[in-house]
Amino acid sequence: RRWRARSPQALARRVAAIEASGRGRGWIEGDAGHGRAYQFDTPAGHRWEILWDVDYAVVAPAERSGLINRASRRPAMGVPARRIDHYNLTAPNVAAERDFLVEALGFMEREAVMTDDGAATIASWLSVTNLSHDLALVPERASATGRFHHVCFYGGSNEMLFDLADLCREHGIALEHGPGRHGIGKTTFLYMLEPGGNRIEMVGDAGAMIFDPAFETVKWKASELPTAAVWTGTEMPASFWSYATPPVEAGVRVA
Amino acid sequence: RRWRARSPQALARRVAAIEASGRGRGWIEGDAGHGRAYQFDTPAGHRWEILWDVDYAVVAPAERSGLINRASRRPAMGVPARRIDHYNLTAPNVAAERDFLVEALGFMEREAVMTDDGAATIASWLSVTNLSHDLALVPERASATGRFHHVCFYGGSNEMLFDLADLCREHGIALEHGPGRHGIGKTTFLYMLEPGGNRIEMVGDAGAMIFDPAFETVKWKASELPTAAVWTGTEMPASFWSYATPPVEAGVRVA
Amino acid sequence: RRWRARSPQALARRVAAIEASGRGRGWIEGDAGHGRAYQFDTPAGHRWEILWDVDYAVVAPAERSGLINRASRRPAMGVPARRIDHYNLTAPNVAAERDFLVEALGFMEREAVMTDDGAATIASWLSVTNLSHDLALVPERASATGRFHHVCFYGGSNEMLFDLADLCREHGIALEHGPGRHGIGKTTFLYMLEPGGNRIEMVGDAGAMIFDPAFETVKWKASELPTAAVWTGTEMPASFWSYATPPVEAGVRVA
Amino acid sequence: RRWRARSPQALARRVAAIEASGRGRGWIEGDAGHGRAYQFDTPAGHRWEILWDVDYAVVAPAERSGLINRASRRPAMGVPARRIDHYNLTAPNVAAERDFLVEALGFMEREAVMTDDGAATIASWLSVTNLSHDLALVPERASATGRFHHVCFYGGSNEMLFDLADLCREHGIALEHGPGRHGIGKTTFLYMLEPGGNRIEMVGDAGAMIFDPAFETVKWKASELPTAAVWTGTEMPASFWSYATPPVEAGVRVA
Repeated sequence: RRWRARSPQALARRVAAIEASGRGRGWIEGDAGHGRAYQFDTPAGHRWEILWDVDYAVVAPAERSGLINRASRRPAMGVPARRIDHYNLTAPNVAAERDFLVEALGFMEREAVMTDDGAATIASWLSVTNLSHDLALVPERASATGRFHHVCFYGGSNEMLFDLADLCREHGIALEHGPGRHGIGKTTFLYMLEPGGNRIEMVGDAGAMIFDPAFETVKWKASELPTAAVWTGTEMPASFWSYATPPVEAGVRVA
Repeated sequence: RRWRARSPQALARRVAAIEASGRGRGWIEGDAGHGRAYQFDTPAGHRWEILWDVDYAVVAPAERSGLINRASRRPAMGVPARRIDHYNLTAPNVAAERDFLVEALGFMEREAVMTDDGAATIASWLSVTNLSHDLALVPERASATGRFHHVCFYGGSNEMLFDLADLCREHGIALEHGPGRHGIGKTTFLYMLEPGGNRIEMVGDAGAMIFDPAFETVKWKASELPTAAVWTGTEMPASFWSYATPPVEAGVRVA
Repeated sequence: RRWRARSPQALARRVAAIEASGRGRGWIEGDAGHGRAYQFDTPAGHRWEILWDVDYAVVAPAERSGLINRASRRPAMGVPARRIDHYNLTAPNVAAERDFLVEALGFMEREAVMTDDGAATIASWLSVTNLSHDLALVPERASATGRFHHVCFYGGSNEMLFDLADLCREHGIALEHGPGRHGIGKTTFLYMLEPGGNRIEMVGDAGAMIFDPAFETVKWKASELPTAAVWTGTEMPASFWSYATPPVEAGVRVA
Repeated sequence: RRWRARSPQALARRVAAIEASGRGRGWIEGDAGHGRAYQFDTPAGHRWEILWDVDYAVVAPAERSGLINRASRRPAMGVPARRIDHYNLTAPNVAAERDFLVEALGFMEREAVMTDDGAATIASWLSVTNLSHDLALVPERASATGRFHHVCFYGGSNEMLFDLADLCREHGIALEHGPGRHGIGKTTFLYMLEPGGNRIEMVGDAGAMIFDPAFETVKWKASELPTAAVWTGTEMPASFWSYATPPVEAGVRVA
């Protein structure tokens, strides 16, 4: 994944922080869609880049919207997802990953699930925006690093979750869970597996945004996990807590 | 338009009633999608057919739904309109047209707009089902007969009206009015003009159904027309009351 | 429960049919909200009445709607359920109950779940209207008769199912299942238990209506039950198949 | 109105900038709900305060939510508005007001309507968050300053706009316009007048958020105003461009 700093100055500060952490790998000259970028590895083994220079999409005249503030014309296919909402990644040690993200990259931890004694972090939801989470970290169940739990798209209505579920059933896309509403973030959800096996979430209602500059991390106890995970709807299936991609064999990542 | 009787016996009774009215034209041997049908002309000049035998759609295996009670697989294009909801036609004499529909075809008048003294019917909404209207009649403003005001499709959510309006703006379909909610029938609406110029309505919420076997016609006064036409939203535009298809020139139908 | 015939003549025909079945109990002189009614017991032990004369609600001026075709002003509390959609009752012998309803009362069986060999009916959905079901019959699991599975209200949007689920969680009403979409009837659902213990369903989208006068019963195999019960969402919980009211002790109804 | 700085340090920087502008009035010791605050007057005559110390709501146990991340239990009355979305204020000189907000308070101008030659700003939409606007400025039509155009609440679904419009009609609240979708911000809207005469907006869909740190102001030409104001729905009524509160008599503010 690639993250964009808020400014060239912010990029310089973040690269310095990453280098100080010993996790930096150095600059690359650029790639499709972006310029110079700094690579680094997170404690959980995710290889990321941080950058400032991006290439904005060039939209062909025929694909332009009638709205000058919309990047391209709304398509007439499928359901109109609007943006990537967040990523959810696995980490063998969620607290270590969270600390790196907070210290080196400026993330704010918005919500967390803790052991009942409050001593250890089990899972963490973080953001650098007004969203309740741009990134979530869940525990890695296999002897593997760098695995992906899901990517989430924002839809904009709960009606869309029913529409999308119907399309998935009719067009051979496996549904994993939902619709329902999470306690954490108060977002509504539908989970699918795309044909390659990766888990996809669609959020209908993005829940409450965070505008309080003094917002304190909401800490759920492990014993409150059922409500934290699902406020309304059916409890998360076992697969949600065990399945990530790429797959592992005998507990070891194979791709 | 073609109407299907409730049974072969009902067809025989309706044909007898039409013949007695002097408006029958006789049987035809069948056409694409249906068998033997009886043609007739309504007082307002609409040429209709009534029949019993229909050919059910044969759906190719690749287009079958995963639901055995759904006719074909839900498509992934556009918005998922479910059915034709109703037709709206013009009549130079709405009362005469309504009387024919009630007497010869068994329609029930559900709602009507009357002159304030209650003496004359200005417009009429009729059904043979639990819907508040399968057919509506509005006054013909030109010296023309047999003209079409609009056909309405049922969508199923008000969210869809916003989706459809957005698609129309982006894909060059003229919007005439809405979204809003009618007083009559309490349906929500969006009106468009298809590229050929005919008016199309999409209903998001189909309003209240009628289950009372002793239901009495709801009679709105002409002075209540603003509320009857629009309960929430902007009043209907002038074009709604004047435009029908095919077009007229100097007040005379030209196609 | 009480059913209203379509006309005084239809009432006379239905009473004659019920008497011929040997299940009639005779006329009562009327009760709150209705006049003379004929009582009878169904094979499954439900005591019902059929009648024509009903008292229409008298609405105080302060509670009248601004719409002349709406019975009373929309309240500002809770979610705006519009009407009772259907009842679901248990029957020790679903086929016998269904046959009585069809023969004596004129119901049409719209969908059914059959044993895989097609020999026996397990559950049945019936209507006398354009709705896919006004009444559903599910097997009685206890040694009891006359038990109630649920009553369903119609809401009008899937957004409302999320709103209602949220209100239930916040105000101490037990949620049993949903939201999701049934295969049978294609309705969306949310199931709750009211404080007295009875199951309540709310339908957001009422699914497809039936307008075909030659509609044939859709027959699902027992092995297709997962799709018949839930098209999108989580499979029905075990309680849905076992819990009905009033409660039973040691398999015997106690209230 | 009161604005909260992002930190005590940010408060000090903003107060210094306001003082440098000559518009500061000095500190007050605090008031209901907040501590020490700095008062100032904007060029358009709005008296505002900026502060850091706020008192968080203390929620009685009976009003607590079942969700630890929700401030209080969702009420069962009316429609569940979630937060204030933005304010819209009038300014005799929009450009001067906008410049003060940008320079002294750190607002970013997200969208603007300009004269067709691009020389002058007619109206402006600004934010300090990921929302497309926290504050909007429209031209003052009367010889008055410090007037209020509307406050907007966020609802969360377009279905709610229809629900709210229905409630307003039934409960005597004047509707001014909508539902529809703005071009600017791409938000959906419904406008009402509360009993005291102030205009209230409800947003169903909050439109696109802004995550690009290099986002450039979207500039609409005056000739594009119809699309900028209304992407789908009916054009804004004349009252929208002339009515603000408190009222003016003979062009002069009277309250």
